[in-house]
Parts: sequence; C-alpha cells; structure tokens
Amino acid sequence: MITTIVWGENVHEQKNKVVADIYPGGMHNHIAAALNNDPEISASVAVLQDPEHGLSKERLAGTDVLIWWGHAAHGEVADEVVERVCERVWGGMGIIFLHSAHFSKPFKRLMGAPCNLTWREAGERERLWITSRNHPITAGVPDSFELENEEMYGEPFGVPEPLETVFISWFQGGEVFRSGLTYKRGTGNIFYFRPGHETYPTYHNEIVQRVIANGVKWTYNPQPKITDPTAAPNVPVDKAPEKIEERGPRLHRDGEEGYR
Amino acid sequence: MITTIVWGENVHEQKNKVVADIYPGGMHNHIAAALNNDPEISASVAVLQDPEHGLSKERLAGTDVLIWWGHAAHGEVADEVVERVCERVWGGMGIIFLHSAHFSKPFKRLMGAPCNLTWREAGERERLWITSRNHPITAGVPDSFELENEEMYGEPFGVPEPLETVFISWFQGGEVFRSGLTYKRGTGNIFYFRPGHETYPTYHNEIVQRVIANGVKWTYNPQPKITDPTAAPNVPVDKAPEKIEERGPRLHRDGEEGYR
Amino acid sequence: MITTIVWGENVHEQKNKVVADIYPGGMHNHIAAALNNDPEISASVAVLQDPEHGLSKERLAGTDVLIWWGHAAHGEVADEVVERVCERVWGGMGIIFLHSAHFSKPFKRLMGAPCNLTWREAGERERLWITSRNHPITAGVPDSFELENEEMYGEPFGVPEPLETVFISWFQGGEVFRSGLTYKRGTGNIFYFRPGHETYPTYHNEIVQRVIANGVKWTYNPQPKITDPTAAPNVPVDKAPEKIEERGPRLHRDGEEGYR
Amino acid sequence: MITTIVWGENVHEQKNKVVADIYPGGMHNHIAAALNNDPEISASVAVLQDPEHGLSKERLAGTDVLIWWGHAAHGEVADEVVERVCERVWGGMGIIFLHSAHFSKPFKRLMGAPCNLTWREAGERERLWITSRNHPITAGVPDSFELENEEMYGEPFGVPEPLETVFISWFQGGEVFRSGLTYKRGTGNIFYFRPGHETYPTYHNEIVQRVIANGVKWTYNPQPKITDPTAAPNVPVDKAPEKIEERGPRLHRDGEEGYR
Repeated sequence: MITTIVWGENVHEQKNKVVADIYPGGMHNHIAAALNNDPEISASVAVLQDPEHGLSKERLAGTDVLIWWGHAAHGEVADEVVERVCERVWGGMGIIFLHSAHFSKPFKRLMGAPCNLTWREAGERERLWITSRNHPITAGVPDSFELENEEMYGEPFGVPEPLETVFISWFQGGEVFRSGLTYKRGTGNIFYFRPGHETYPTYHNEIVQRVIANGVKWTYNPQPKITDPTAAPNVPVDKAPEKIEERGPRLHRDGEEGYR
Repeated sequence: MITTIVWGENVHEQKNKVVADIYPGGMHNHIAAALNNDPEISASVAVLQDPEHGLSKERLAGTDVLIWWGHAAHGEVADEVVERVCERVWGGMGIIFLHSAHFSKPFKRLMGAPCNLTWREAGERERLWITSRNHPITAGVPDSFELENEEMYGEPFGVPEPLETVFISWFQGGEVFRSGLTYKRGTGNIFYFRPGHETYPTYHNEIVQRVIANGVKWTYNPQPKITDPTAAPNVPVDKAPEKIEERGPRLHRDGEEGYR
Repeated sequence: MITTIVWGENVHEQKNKVVADIYPGGMHNHIAAALNNDPEISASVAVLQDPEHGLSKERLAGTDVLIWWGHAAHGEVADEVVERVCERVWGGMGIIFLHSAHFSKPFKRLMGAPCNLTWREAGERERLWITSRNHPITAGVPDSFELENEEMYGEPFGVPEPLETVFISWFQGGEVFRSGLTYKRGTGNIFYFRPGHETYPTYHNEIVQRVIANGVKWTYNPQPKITDPTAAPNVPVDKAPEKIEERGPRLHRDGEEGYR
Repeated sequence: MITTIVWGENVHEQKNKVVADIYPGGMHNHIAAALNNDPEISASVAVLQDPEHGLSKERLAGTDVLIWWGHAAHGEVADEVVERVCERVWGGMGIIFLHSAHFSKPFKRLMGAPCNLTWREAGERERLWITSRNHPITAGVPDSFELENEEMYGEPFGVPEPLETVFISWFQGGEVFRSGLTYKRGTGNIFYFRPGHETYPTYHNEIVQRVIANGVKWTYNPQPKITDPTAAPNVPVDKAPEKIEERGPRLHRDGEEGYR
C-alpha cells in the first residue's frame, strides 16, 4: 500500500457555491476517494486549516506520496512546513503538484525557477496529448483525451527542463502547455499535472483520475527513506577508500562539520 | 564586453595566513584579474562586507554574469539579496558557482535540491576529465588536467540531473565527483565548477582560469534581460489567439491578477 | 563566417507546379539565399541529384553546418553518404533537420529512434510557441507566431527526450507537436525544426528564416573538428595517469586495437 | 515474471582458457542463472552461433527484456537481427548493454553516436559510485563498491546525454567513466552498465548481479508492446479532433501513406 496524503487548500470549496456544488466534500476528499479505489493506494487528506496544515513531522514520516492542490492561499502556507515537505521529498517521498500548485511554495522551492505562465479562465476546451508513449504515468491512457471546460495555461512555462515531458495540452483559444512533467530532487520523484481548475468537474473525469493514480505509483519510491537528506559527511583521511597521506595546509579538523 | 562581477565571501583571506599568502588581494580580486585578461570580459568584484553585499538592484541590473565563491559565511548572506540574485538569473543573468558555493544560498535556491556531498581536506590529487567533448566550456582544455593539491568532494552529489555533465573528477583517495554541470533556470544559464579550495593555489592554474572564462562566455545570454521574470499575465478572452467565447463559471474578472 | 550547406531533395520542385511556383529556384536555393543575408553565414547548396549528393568527403570537411530537407526520396540517399554525414556531425559539424527530414536517413540514424508522428495535409493554421525562453535559437522571435497554411504533424513524436524543447506547435485541427528540439551527438549540435511543407510558402516567412539562421549559429561549433570521432584509443599501462602495475590475465597486447 | 533473454557472443568462452575457467558454461548462462534466483525474473539464453543468433521474430515477440554482451564478434551480428532488436525495443522491450557491448551494433544503432572511449586491460581496481541516489537500479546497493580487477574504460565516452547518470567509476590508473546510464528510445527503456571484462570474475560479484537484476526490473515496461512502433498514420480531415476544412494545395490523397 502506498500511503498517500491529498493536501487541499480548501478555500474556494468553503466560499464559492460553484466549487462547493462540484466538490461537496472538498476537492481533496474527492481526489482521495478516487485514489482509494486503487487497491495499491491508501489515501487520506490534509488541509491548510489543520494544525501545521495537517503535515506534522510525524505524519510526513509515514507518508510515501503527497499530492498538492492550492490556489488562492499559497501565501498562507507556513515556510516551516514548506521546508519540511521539501526535506521529506529529498528523503524519498514522491510529490504530485496539480494545476495551480505551479505557484505553490513547495513547487517553486523544488524547481528553483519562476514557474510562471499565461492563463485565461474561459471554460474552453483542452486536449492533452501523450508525448512520452508508454511512460508508466500513461498506463491505460489514450494518445489524447479532452476536457470540455478548463482554464487555459499557456507557454512559456517557467520551469526547468524536465526529466521527461509526458503530456502537452492543446487549448481551443490557441495556446499550448507542457501539462505533464517529471523531475527528481534528492531521492524524491516529482510529477506536475496541469488539469484541475476548481470551477469545472475535472477531477470527476476518469482519465484524469487514472493519471493521478499512475502518478502516485510512479512517484512512489519503495526504497527506505533517507532521514537526513542534506547530510554532507566528512571522510577522514584514514577512512579514504584508497590509502593517502595528508598533504598541505588545511582549514578543518578531522571529522569536523563543514560550513553551511 | 561581458560585464561580470566576481563575488567573494572574503572571510578566510582576512583570517587565515595560508589563504592570504596565496591570494594577497583576496580570491575575488585574483579571479577578476585573470578574467580581465580576456578581451571579451570586463570583471569587477563584490564582497560580503559591502553594503547589500555589493549586489544592489542597480548594479545587478547592469551585470551579465555573476561568479560566486563562498564557504564559511553562507548563513550571513541576506535572504533579500539571494532572492534578488535569483530573480536576475531568471531574467537572463548568467551565474557561475565555484567550489564550496555548492552550499551557498543562491545555489541551493536555484537547484531546489539538497546539494550535499562528501568531503575531505587532505591536499590530495584531483584530475578532471571532460565528458562533453567540445562543449564551449571546454574550449582549449585538454581531455584531462590535474590539480596536485585539492580538497576532495565525493558523490553522491545531491543536485538535479543537469542539462549536461561537462567534467568529472577523479580523486587520489578513491572518490569521483561531477565537477562541471550546466543548468538553465528561467532565462539564465548556470554553471557549477568544483575546484577552488582556499588553502591551495587552484585559481593560479591557467586551465582553471580558462574554464572560468569559458564559463562566463557560455553563461552569458546576449538577449535582452527580462525585467519581470515571474510575471504570469492573464490573456483575456478577446485577446485569445483563436476566437473563443467564454463558457461556464469563473473565479476571476478580466485582466485580474492571478493568485500567488 | 559559418560555412553552411543547404541540402535539398529537389524532387517536388521539378515535378509539382505548385511547389515550383512557390520556390522557382528550388527550396534549397531559396533557403540559402535567405541565410546569405546574414553577415555571419555563407551558404551554398547541394541536391540529391549531384554526384555523391553534393556531399563529398572533401566538401563536408570544409563545412560547419548542414541543413537537410527531404521528403519523397529519403530511400534514394546512399547509405555511404549518410554514414559520412553522421561521422562529420560526430566530429563537430552542426546539422539542422527541417520538416519531413524527421524521416530522413541521417536523422533516424542520429536519433536511434522511430521518429514517427501523425500527419494531415489540410492547409490548416499552425502557431508555434517558445518553450525555452531566450534560448539562442529564439533570438528576435516573439513568444508565438503563426503560419496560416501548414501540414499538421502530431504527437506522439517518436524521438528521444531532447536537451531542450524550444518550440511547441498548436494546430487548428486539434493536435500539438514539439516543433523545435535540440540534441548533441558526439561533438555535433543538432536542431530539428518542424515547419516547411513544400506546397506552402513557409520559407518565405521572415520569422521562420530567422529561426533557421539562429539555428545555424547555435549548431555551429567553433572548436576544431575532430577528424576521427569514433577512435577508441588504448592507454598502455605505462601511460596511465597514475602509476599502476599490470595484474591478472588479459586478452589484448599493449597498444593493440580493440574490437569493433 | 519478466521474460528475459541473456544474449552472449560466446566466442572467448570457447577459445580462451582463462575465460572458460571463470565461466565454464559461458558468461550468458552464468548471468542467466544468477537472474533466475530472482522470483520476478525468468531468464533464458541466446548466442551468436544460434540460427538468427537465437533472436527470431517469434522469440523476441515474447520477450520483455534483452541483455547483450558482445566483444570480439560485433561485426558478425546480422544487420537484419540488429534492426529487429531495435524495433522491438522501440515497441517496448527493455534492453541492457553490458561492458564491451558499448560497441555492439544495436547499442550504436540506438544511441546514434560514436560510443567510443579509452581503455586499458591491466587488471586494475575499479570503484563504482552511485550518482542517482535511490534510483530503482541502485536498490540494495551501497554508495560505492569495488571490483579488484577490471578493464579500464575512460572518458570522454561518446554517448548522448542520458536521462540519468546512475553510476560513475573510479579507476586505479587515474581515469573515470560514466558506468551506469539510462535512456529511452521509442517506448523501450535502455540501461548501459559498464563492468564485465571476460578475463575477470565480475559476474560472480553479488552486487553486480543485483544491479543487473535491478536493471531488468527498471527496463521492464509492463504496458502492452507496440507491434508497429514506426507507424506514421495519416489523420484525414474528417477525423481531425477539431472540425476544419481543407485549404490550399496538397501532395497527398486522403489516408495515403506518407513517404519514408
């Protein structure tokens, strides 16, 4: 079982009738319920309003994959939690960023890039095309599929060149967008997946649900998580793999911690 | 002329006689002087102790390439300056990180990764091998070259997969390290180059000087810098490249700024 | 001056009145003339019907960049010339593949991949979007530009993940395509650029001309070409960078050539 | 079960007493036996001397992963079989190239690059370092491990930039080498793994065996194989995802096959 948390900002679900009508229990619960239909995935939820946003150190320590959806309240996410999430990713937790999470703090932190794009909220048609055929994330997904109403996101998308471009979107209004991108940071796998504007029923779409479930399995790293992923150990001279003798001047003493 | 700043932490040069003897004017001035032998490069210096660390908004606005060397005082660099530097990189300024700058704030910020490694200060021999033959950064550089005394940095190096691996180092004590790596973040080119422990005369080596000069030319982007590299403009329905009509519910008003 | 050859198949120009009317001197001469407006480029032409297809060993030895356009007669290109071209690329010659050259022998040879796609010849509108902002190939090119009539090429495009995706196309009929891709093979830079169906006046478009000229400059490697790019030299024990003694059994004698 | 073939050239095992003593049943049988200890893998063998080199169309059609070891007889492998193997890789079969298979026909065909290197047969010590921590191929493998006697392969290694660099080797004689590299061609995953000179007992090493078994699992693509991986289907106007009308002149008729 892949222990998964679906993190939702849970703001528009509370304030906006359109969103509440599409996702009566909130987007996070809706996505988690869909994932729980998969026998390999065990999904629970966390929201911005929870203590520590539902992402305590203890809970993250038992989590294999985190899914992030945020939009209106990116700025309200505590920096301490962002750093904690990123460290856990570096230690091996998979992470999936959905839609407007392109501007979330953890995504920007992990990309080191502006992560900007162009956008338009007009309910236009989006069609996603597979570009990395038979990538695990595309299992059971046709070469293209449509979402009749979506927000447009357009290139240039200010992200680093990915490991692989898995999906590209066509928009009715004339734009294109790299909609599925994979990365690795530290020992953690990252998947960005574009669809999911909150005023449309995107997460009711079965293909979208399947891509997210595939994404959970792809980002999941079954190897033991690394608990101190930023450690930079000194290797003393007498522990060097090859016998050497110390030469020349030095700044540090044996086994001393390096500067950060 | 490529307007270049060599940024130096300038700490050990002031406190440590060994370092001061090798680099009487400081490492930054030494590197800048070497670069100024190249007719295409105009290099000046900046140090941690300057107001705003010598990296005011105005000065960065006229800078094409920034070179960063830091070690003992990473934590003393102001976050505001780090963010300013990264924004300028996203807007098109090239940046070169030397040696222990792998743990500097701007490098970690641009990588989004732990950037950790193993290390040993034993004055051992390092030999760098070219892995991307005839890359512009290797112009005039032999397939391999040696530094008789260097600090060891060992794999695994916690950085994202690069655009290209340009150099790999062999160490006498038995380790290897990816010593030359290229990245792009936003519209800015990034080059990490490993050698340069402060207690050895590495930056007196002519091949090392040539690699850094090549790096300045490779990271330099002659296209106009982008002054607002994180802008995420709305494209109103009537400005869509293809004629569309708005459909369905929406959250935003025309031309409104998106959430961040 | 970057010595450039524009290679044209020169078949439809001879047989098809539409093509002949758009490109009275042939597509190759038209493209070469446009390139010769650039003071850094010196372009000549070669065609399938020339002896050795105009690509003798001597001529290639003086060539910096080769541009390839082919469509109906891929199978008529001699394998020996293909191998010669690829060897020259490995040695440092830049190469640009235009449009239907995605199925040319040298492109398939250099990619090692199926290079397939979907297609439709309906004169529909194509809009290219920049995805790698301020890449040298995009100098002076707006974020998007249109070609009112083009053949459609659709994803999935069976090519290896590139160094960078520079352009993505939107098509009126609903498809997308990675229209600008960069690669490196050996020491040679490769640029694939999609537009250019022969029955439309694509190469009269000034932005298309600019992209091709930028591509020539980007693929051009000013370092000395490598004349034996597949050499795999033996390093005898007494020439090893570190002193070692031979141990254990062996198959080869000192300095002997390896197996191929 | 992952249906795997270990292909061996089977030349030195027959001619050279040293090799025959280390691998009495041949390297291919030795490697296959080690893989068959893994409950997820079912490995059989094929050799150069078999009809069609043991790689008939029918047999490949039932194969998930192919492992290739060759050295002295690269030139004796039939081009038709090479093309068949590559097509199967494009259709989804995983492939692992071991050691001197860097110069085998299928590896060179899939890389599109010179694949050259430097080498020395001196029984020197090799130490492999993990560079992509917790990559599936490194499961259960320590950060570094040693092979006391190996042939040296040195950089520059003439291969395309990989998806990921997984291992880098240190050699006693002073060289380094990218010893573990991953690629994707068509829908097939490729892993190159360096160790395995035939005069040393490398494939008796348990860590080496584990890396190869991990490699089988990583290159294995459980999705249905694609039987016509080079198909380039025409999409007629009336089948376009968006309604369009044909405009302008054309070369092809509806549904006609494209040129190759």
